[in-house]
Amino acid sequence: MSRDGSNWMAVDWSEGRLRIWVIGADGEVAAREEADVGGETGYEAVLGPLIAHHLDDDSETDILIAGDPAGPEGWRAPELRAVPCRPPEAGDVTPVEARDGRMRVSLVTGIRQETPAGLMLSDAVRVRGFLALNDTFDGVLCLTGMRTRWVHISAGEIVSFQSHLTGDLVRQTLAGLGVSGQPGQGMGEAVSDALSRPESLAARLGSIEAAHRLGRAPEADVLNEVWGLFLGLELAGARPYWLGQRVALVGSGTRMEAYRSAMSAQGVLLETGEEEDTILAGFRAIRG
Amino acid sequence: MSRDGSNWMAVDWSEGRLRIWVIGADGEVAAREEADVGGETGYEAVLGPLIAHHLDDDSETDILIAGDPAGPEGWRAPELRAVPCRPPEAGDVTPVEARDGRMRVSLVTGIRQETPAGLMLSDAVRVRGFLALNDTFDGVLCLTGMRTRWVHISAGEIVSFQSHLTGDLVRQTLAGLGVSGQPGQGMGEAVSDALSRPESLAARLGSIEAAHRLGRAPEADVLNEVWGLFLGLELAGARPYWLGQRVALVGSGTRMEAYRSAMSAQGVLLETGEEEDTILAGFRAIRG
Repeated sequence: MSRDGSNWMAVDWSEGRLRIWVIGADGEVAAREEADVGGETGYEAVLGPLIAHHLDDDSETDILIAGDPAGPEGWRAPELRAVPCRPPEAGDVTPVEARDGRMRVSLVTGIRQETPAGLMLSDAVRVRGFLALNDTFDGVLCLTGMRTRWVHISAGEIVSFQSHLTGDLVRQTLAGLGVSGQPGQGMGEAVSDALSRPESLAARLGSIEAAHRLGRAPEADVLNEVWGLFLGLELAGARPYWLGQRVALVGSGTRMEAYRSAMSAQGVLLETGEEEDTILAGFRAIRG
Repeated sequence: MSRDGSNWMAVDWSEGRLRIWVIGADGEVAAREEADVGGETGYEAVLGPLIAHHLDDDSETDILIAGDPAGPEGWRAPELRAVPCRPPEAGDVTPVEARDGRMRVSLVTGIRQETPAGLMLSDAVRVRGFLALNDTFDGVLCLTGMRTRWVHISAGEIVSFQSHLTGDLVRQTLAGLGVSGQPGQGMGEAVSDALSRPESLAARLGSIEAAHRLGRAPEADVLNEVWGLFLGLELAGARPYWLGQRVALVGSGTRMEAYRSAMSAQGVLLETGEEEDTILAGFRAIRG
């Protein structure tokens, strides 16, 4: 056990953000660290300074990492398992050699799909976590994020999944329009318009930009329109994943709320999973 | 007439790029200047240093500017005319007061549309230029750019227009995927897929990203897929503008080629206009 009472760490490295949970001897979260690491790679060089004060000089600390394949510069990539398959479970990890002898690092096994091409790394932990908390769940998980993943679960296996770049497209489009912030309550119309006429997306964006520049659309309207259009486009494309399905939504904050509100308006009955609880349940199950 | 034989300048300020043509006493282009000015505003502060060596200390030089409404910090915005209307013609300019007494600046009148909201500034010059070169044209102009504009022309008037943020979406998406370059010949399938299933856009992008990260899609495939999908989406949304219409395409380089190839594959017979010729014809007609 290390100096400050921790005995292992869970690390989620995804979407340019590094989240670290230090788990104490009682199994509870003893400390959290978080950092935006952008496109930086090199797990150990980036991770080391963030966790140094949680390491014990006289013993090794287990570090379980789920994350971006662009990251492990100098480390081997995590193993990948092809669908259909169970999400990673106890012991499904790849040990890697850390230069710092106080770190005993393992990478969580990821999930890949042949056709259409798909890759899940940190989201594989979320799937495991959701099933750990809801062990009889059969249906579709919607894991919201910069890339949102729709995951068909049947009899404890991942049958298929599909990633949508919606969060990224929204962020980039808003940056291009010089607008920032979170959507409010008024995006319902844009969602349903994009669901029924997805082909109008680029034209609708052209119009909202013009309206904004002509002083006829305040930032709140731009946010609702951009979020609503891209969410509607995603829901149109993901229809087979939610229409008539049992759907559980995992996420946090405004983005999760936007998905919840958009799907509810389409009559989808949703279960929900809190993001951090789900991630930690996943890491705990994989650590065994 | 100024020192180096120039007697007026045409300035196109759009999409974060400043293009300046110095027109000599013989009416021909005597010099060109070009600069990426990003989101910079303040016409005079940015423009001044780029043209200083073309100005005459003893006389005023006419400078005709068409451009971005975010730009004229300290200058009044150009006038706007609502469709249906003719594109700006001789004398349709707004004089503005330059601090530098050697510059006699005029902003070209822009075009706006109420519903759907639309705004054309430098593209209004392109419309005028195309009609100056093709005075009996009735049909649709497709002005390619970071924002592509489809413009219905009838009897010399702009009847309606629609901007699509396609170029921007492509650029941002490729940046997010860490890929750069120009599309090649292989984007036809992505174009027709997006035309028939526009709702699949964000999912297709998710798949191409995964394929790229799994080492199964080289950069050339990513470029073709991203360009093809967004072009197909635009063509699906702009269908009323090209289906059964006489269409003329104005642009340059690879982007124009991508539009030409995508539309030709849909059986659209295209006329084309070279971008710089069209812009200069427009400025000449507006200067009168």
